[in-house]
Amino acid sequence: MKNKPTMFLILMLAVFLFSSIQTSYSQNETQSQIQGKWIDLTHDFSEETIYWPTADEFKLQSVFEGMTDKGYFYDANNYSAAEHGGTHIDSPIHFSEGKQTVDEIPIENLVGPAVLINVSEKALANPDYLVGIKDFNDWESEHGQIPDGSIVLLNTGYAQFWPDKVKYMGTDKRGPEAVKDLHFPGLDPKAAEWLVQNRSINAIGLDTPSIDYGQSTLFKSHRILFKENIPAFENVANLDKLPPKGAFVIALPMKIKRGSGGPLRIIANIPAE
Amino acid sequence: MKNKPTMFLILMLAVFLFSSIQTSYSQNETQSQIQGKWIDLTHDFSEETIYWPTADEFKLQSVFEGMTDKGYFYDANNYSAAEHGGTHIDSPIHFSEGKQTVDEIPIENLVGPAVLINVSEKALANPDYLVGIKDFNDWESEHGQIPDGSIVLLNTGYAQFWPDKVKYMGTDKRGPEAVKDLHFPGLDPKAAEWLVQNRSINAIGLDTPSIDYGQSTLFKSHRILFKENIPAFENVANLDKLPPKGAFVIALPMKIKRGSGGPLRIIANIPAE
Repeated sequence: MKNKPTMFLILMLAVFLFSSIQTSYSQNETQSQIQGKWIDLTHDFSEETIYWPTADEFKLQSVFEGMTDKGYFYDANNYSAAEHGGTHIDSPIHFSEGKQTVDEIPIENLVGPAVLINVSEKALANPDYLVGIKDFNDWESEHGQIPDGSIVLLNTGYAQFWPDKVKYMGTDKRGPEAVKDLHFPGLDPKAAEWLVQNRSINAIGLDTPSIDYGQSTLFKSHRILFKENIPAFENVANLDKLPPKGAFVIALPMKIKRGSGGPLRIIANIPAE
Repeated sequence: MKNKPTMFLILMLAVFLFSSIQTSYSQNETQSQIQGKWIDLTHDFSEETIYWPTADEFKLQSVFEGMTDKGYFYDANNYSAAEHGGTHIDSPIHFSEGKQTVDEIPIENLVGPAVLINVSEKALANPDYLVGIKDFNDWESEHGQIPDGSIVLLNTGYAQFWPDKVKYMGTDKRGPEAVKDLHFPGLDPKAAEWLVQNRSINAIGLDTPSIDYGQSTLFKSHRILFKENIPAFENVANLDKLPPKGAFVIALPMKIKRGSGGPLRIIANIPAE
């Protein structure tokens, strides 16, 4: 079967129009009307996937691969990892007692218009860069107030270094002693406080291992956001392919009951050029 | 933060309209136009999650939960399982050498309009029920031809028994000897052949452990579909909440490099009543 992205998007629009204008579903009426494209914002999981120095890494173990004695091909594996590594979600309970576990986050909070804050020039010049209130103010000066229900994405430029741990997060050492060597950009706790006080966002994400920067020891941005049940997406990919606004994000985590987080598949639809 | 599903859907429509009519993004123009709602078609992963009798089950192991010596709450776990259990995707390579691994499936093939074939009355009366060509013909007689790019979903009614293994799949025994006791509905290989020859679907899914029925030994429906790179979604939930047509499905698997399948988060948007 061939891929027919244009046709699928036409059909998608048809469905949404159907739900909006309450008339009967008509594919013909919406043909040739939509030309958005999908971007995958997800790194794959492999032995190269980046984890916190103290966390168990991703492992894929083959159960069977090849021809069975019944004459058909079969391939299957087992997988294991820590919840917090690779492209993943931090559920609010990760740093905030009693808040949402990953299975409890409403779908409505996992979809929304993307607000893309590009701080890559400053962050690439300083691996300890903190994304600040000024960065949000600058975006709003140009594009208007961050809409309610947005998914705010911070492009630090560090995804280009994946999966080189030294360049991506400052160290490839493992164990508790390596944590002090972590250097990568994150969200200033003052900006986290500003966001929860002044804007009504669905979620926040970035292209580094943690919403708090590498040198954080108290993880205040996590705590400020999660207290308000705003989850964080970490190690997000391909943010350089998104426009400052106009994209729509769908971020679906593995539904682990009582999970503090887990693997996230995050995609964006962007308008045609 | 409150949930505001209506507003998010309005913004979603705005994005799609933006991409379709090539005018500037305008939230106001699309306010009050869309009222769809999200349905989660995913069972959560826990110690109760149903796996094939021979497959490793899902395990969640606590790494830390409670107050740290730095004065903040922290919660994190490790997870492990076989790829094929719970609500999951079978990637084409699972039964077809050289076909797509789970990370290779294009996003365009994981989204599409839902075609919901309800066979629950017949399947609940017969746990060895095979969804046949007639079931597809009956649906098309009423609703028109299955659109290109559809995600075909088979509602057998068995999701109501989850997580009771005896009722859901005929046995709660484990190990190779239990496989002969599996009884649950699946797709007739003749219907699989009809679908790949006559329709151009994106993917197929159902609310039982396997696209081939419980008594299958040669897994022909898997092999017929996967040879054409059509993936299967298994152990899907909440299909009884979908209309026969008009829903839109987004099915995002964990992006396991070279994976033969894996955990799937699958959601549907349905038109407002």
